[in-house]
Amino acid sequence: MTAPSNLITAAILVIGDEILSGRTKDKNIGYIAEYLTNIGIDLKEVRVVPDEEDEIVAALNALRGRYSYVFTTGGIGPTHDDITADSVAKAFGVSIDIDPRAVAIMQERFAARGVEMNEARLRMARIPAGAELVENKQSGAPGFMIGNVIVMAGVPSIMQAMLDAAAPRLKTGVKMISETIRGDVREGDIGTELGEIARQHPNATIGSYPFFDDKSGPNTNLVIRSRDAGSLAAARTDVEAMLKRVRGTLKATA
Amino acid sequence: MTAPSNLITAAILVIGDEILSGRTKDKNIGYIAEYLTNIGIDLKEVRVVPDEEDEIVAALNALRGRYSYVFTTGGIGPTHDDITADSVAKAFGVSIDIDPRAVAIMQERFAARGVEMNEARLRMARIPAGAELVENKQSGAPGFMIGNVIVMAGVPSIMQAMLDAAAPRLKTGVKMISETIRGDVREGDIGTELGEIARQHPNATIGSYPFFDDKSGPNTNLVIRSRDAGSLAAARTDVEAMLKRVRGTLKATA
Repeated sequence: MTAPSNLITAAILVIGDEILSGRTKDKNIGYIAEYLTNIGIDLKEVRVVPDEEDEIVAALNALRGRYSYVFTTGGIGPTHDDITADSVAKAFGVSIDIDPRAVAIMQERFAARGVEMNEARLRMARIPAGAELVENKQSGAPGFMIGNVIVMAGVPSIMQAMLDAAAPRLKTGVKMISETIRGDVREGDIGTELGEIARQHPNATIGSYPFFDDKSGPNTNLVIRSRDAGSLAAARTDVEAMLKRVRGTLKATA
Repeated sequence: MTAPSNLITAAILVIGDEILSGRTKDKNIGYIAEYLTNIGIDLKEVRVVPDEEDEIVAALNALRGRYSYVFTTGGIGPTHDDITADSVAKAFGVSIDIDPRAVAIMQERFAARGVEMNEARLRMARIPAGAELVENKQSGAPGFMIGNVIVMAGVPSIMQAMLDAAAPRLKTGVKMISETIRGDVREGDIGTELGEIARQHPNATIGSYPFFDDKSGPNTNLVIRSRDAGSLAAARTDVEAMLKRVRGTLKATA
């Protein structure tokens, strides 16, 4: 598929031992993936790394050099295992300190909720030099954006609030459009023909996803994606004609 | 934390455009993570990459050189977008062809279900030279294991059957044990003290995970993990004493 000149790409970096141990099941990857698709940003890679500075720095530097944006989740709370902000500062080679803007926001929120500011909570105001804050309507303590990296919380409701706050600042590209066609065939019945159609439509990508229907048994969803509506429609016409033909043949030989 | 000499590590490589577009929400990472923890294998990294050969080869080669095992999910079906087996062969620099062992298994299963063998389905019998098959009790077409890489389907029920089949062949290490303590404090109330306890117990890792309780509001789970029961118990004693102290102080000042 030809890449348009304004293709905007992204990676997600999930930071947290609790995801790797299986104790916490990630809910952020799928949410961010769908969100980015909807605003015209192509998610190209995801990594999950432990709460270890070297791992975070290495992954972040690999990803931020390669994609338009990197979204991190996790590790910006008030405890010793929250080392994301410091790791991001290290990756960028900048200093990090308690940020008066973040403190002011947190003081106001904490006062309203009757929570005391202390050494641990001040840790959440540590922001790398040069970063912009990302508002957190959910619980106050902000995320931040530095260069092309958006640093967000791991708690899904807080991450979602931060993503809403960051999104208007992002460059976006031509939105990928997609259509799903229910095949009513097994994947293996159409593999060869579908591959041929995919080759004939280089401006669309065609994915084949098997699923099991409780009533009718093994089935397949075909998903056609393109940034161009005409290319998508042309591929769709060929896919539908092929499906009709194959279903006819299967019926005749059944 | 001191790494025992028999530490067995792993990475997961999820392959699939549908995960990156957000269309399909991954259910395999959390399942495999928990499974590996339970059998004494430390999951250290996860990557999600698109259905692109260069990306799969690069990620696989980075991961298989670094960890004891790499588990891949996705991309071994009968359609043109299933390119995992060929990419794995390329990463290992070996040939790939239709494997008579895989064909025999599939012929038997297909005959029993009245499904015809065809060119597309034969694609699922393409196995890199030197690989061992991994049984698929769910739907027949096998996964495979080559070197330290275990190649599995993306459909969760099939992946789970393959993981069960592969697990008995794997080396495993001393199992990580963990205990969860409900804090009944906010994370920010204990951050400083918890960090001090974590430093005093280098053979345990202590994670702090905020959650919201519908009855009592913001709360925190503390998870202590160690391979040594004595180290875990010692850390637990200190964490519980600290929690009692902090809760007392909060009550007195409330």
